[in-house]
Amino acid sequence: MLQPILNVLNTQRIVLASGSPRRKQFLGQIVGLSFEVIPSSFEENLDKSLFKQPSDYVKETARLKTIEVVDRLKTDQRIPDLVIGADTVVAMDDKIYEKPKDRQDAINMLKSFNNRSHSVYTGVVLATPKSSKYVTFGEVINDYRYNIFHECTEVIMSEIPDNVIEQYVDTGEPMDKAGGYGIQSLGGSLVKGINGDFFNVAGFPVHTFCKNLYSLYASNK
Amino acid sequence: MLQPILNVLNTQRIVLASGSPRRKQFLGQIVGLSFEVIPSSFEENLDKSLFKQPSDYVKETARLKTIEVVDRLKTDQRIPDLVIGADTVVAMDDKIYEKPKDRQDAINMLKSFNNRSHSVYTGVVLATPKSSKYVTFGEVINDYRYNIFHECTEVIMSEIPDNVIEQYVDTGEPMDKAGGYGIQSLGGSLVKGINGDFFNVAGFPVHTFCKNLYSLYASNK
Repeated sequence: MLQPILNVLNTQRIVLASGSPRRKQFLGQIVGLSFEVIPSSFEENLDKSLFKQPSDYVKETARLKTIEVVDRLKTDQRIPDLVIGADTVVAMDDKIYEKPKDRQDAINMLKSFNNRSHSVYTGVVLATPKSSKYVTFGEVINDYRYNIFHECTEVIMSEIPDNVIEQYVDTGEPMDKAGGYGIQSLGGSLVKGINGDFFNVAGFPVHTFCKNLYSLYASNK
Repeated sequence: MLQPILNVLNTQRIVLASGSPRRKQFLGQIVGLSFEVIPSSFEENLDKSLFKQPSDYVKETARLKTIEVVDRLKTDQRIPDLVIGADTVVAMDDKIYEKPKDRQDAINMLKSFNNRSHSVYTGVVLATPKSSKYVTFGEVINDYRYNIFHECTEVIMSEIPDNVIEQYVDTGEPMDKAGGYGIQSLGGSLVKGINGDFFNVAGFPVHTFCKNLYSLYASNK
């Protein structure tokens, strides 16, 4: 998808402000970018009741994660040309689910998703220096422009017996994943189907990311 | 998903009758089975005009692929307890697309999928010895029972410029993939979204496979 602008992107210093192994994998293997990983230290602790929609919550968390990394790197000899931040949550019945706190929390989450559908939201932030000759729009904060968007995917869970849920949680896989399951690994067999971008369910909306990055860069390349 | 019957499956000789690296990956990492890979030598050359639906075509091709491997192994000291066969095609406007013949064929396929939706069909066959104490239904052919099903997933392709299609084909990725794209690798960024099982698009319907295998084994374990 990004082939026509890769000649520009390949000369840039690109930073992924996230420690998620899935985001790293997708940005490398599916998008085809070269980048550094510098995880944000921003704590994901915003008051969810202040946000009307899960999309507003993930966009604001992703924005604050990204700003933390941009600010940390602004004294580097070579500041980043592009910092990519993201935040993912699961939402169902007006409730937002993040990573499970413990084993019982993971079991409760999966039982509540059982045999019905929920939504996965990812907010993505593209931060570029105000002085960039390629990206010329986006809100400016402290000499960087911020372009922010989100993607939502519906996930339909299978009817899963309680003992299967418990045995799945005991594999340890759910603990670092929003919503308590990994669609890319053992948890994938619990999912009947999805409606939308698969990669978004695992934490990064590859297609929307490429479309947005392409339109930001292609007009001024 | 299969945790409650893994104690039985782990004692069995299980054979995947396909050389697809994606099927091997999914059956191992997502389903969690241990198995041997013995690719079928059945040539995928059935006359497509004889089949009313793409689902009938993939089920029959998968059946013949599986029979070839079952027959080849029937003189083994330990015959397989379960042979898994599969066949995947892409279908659009009553036309069936398999692997591209060459570069131009791949470009033509991707141009025809551009900015619209198509369907991916996978037929799956579970072959078990007639003497199995676990699986007691399915059509019998030469002392093996055959349980056969299929899965269909809708894929919505993005609007892709011609030069992006050509540069993608030049990566070489499309050549061993039905429909000429790999949703799990660079081709994933060309896909706007899907409706159904993601793994089915890459060649193996993980959820339906698990559900069917579970119901075959769980009633007699």
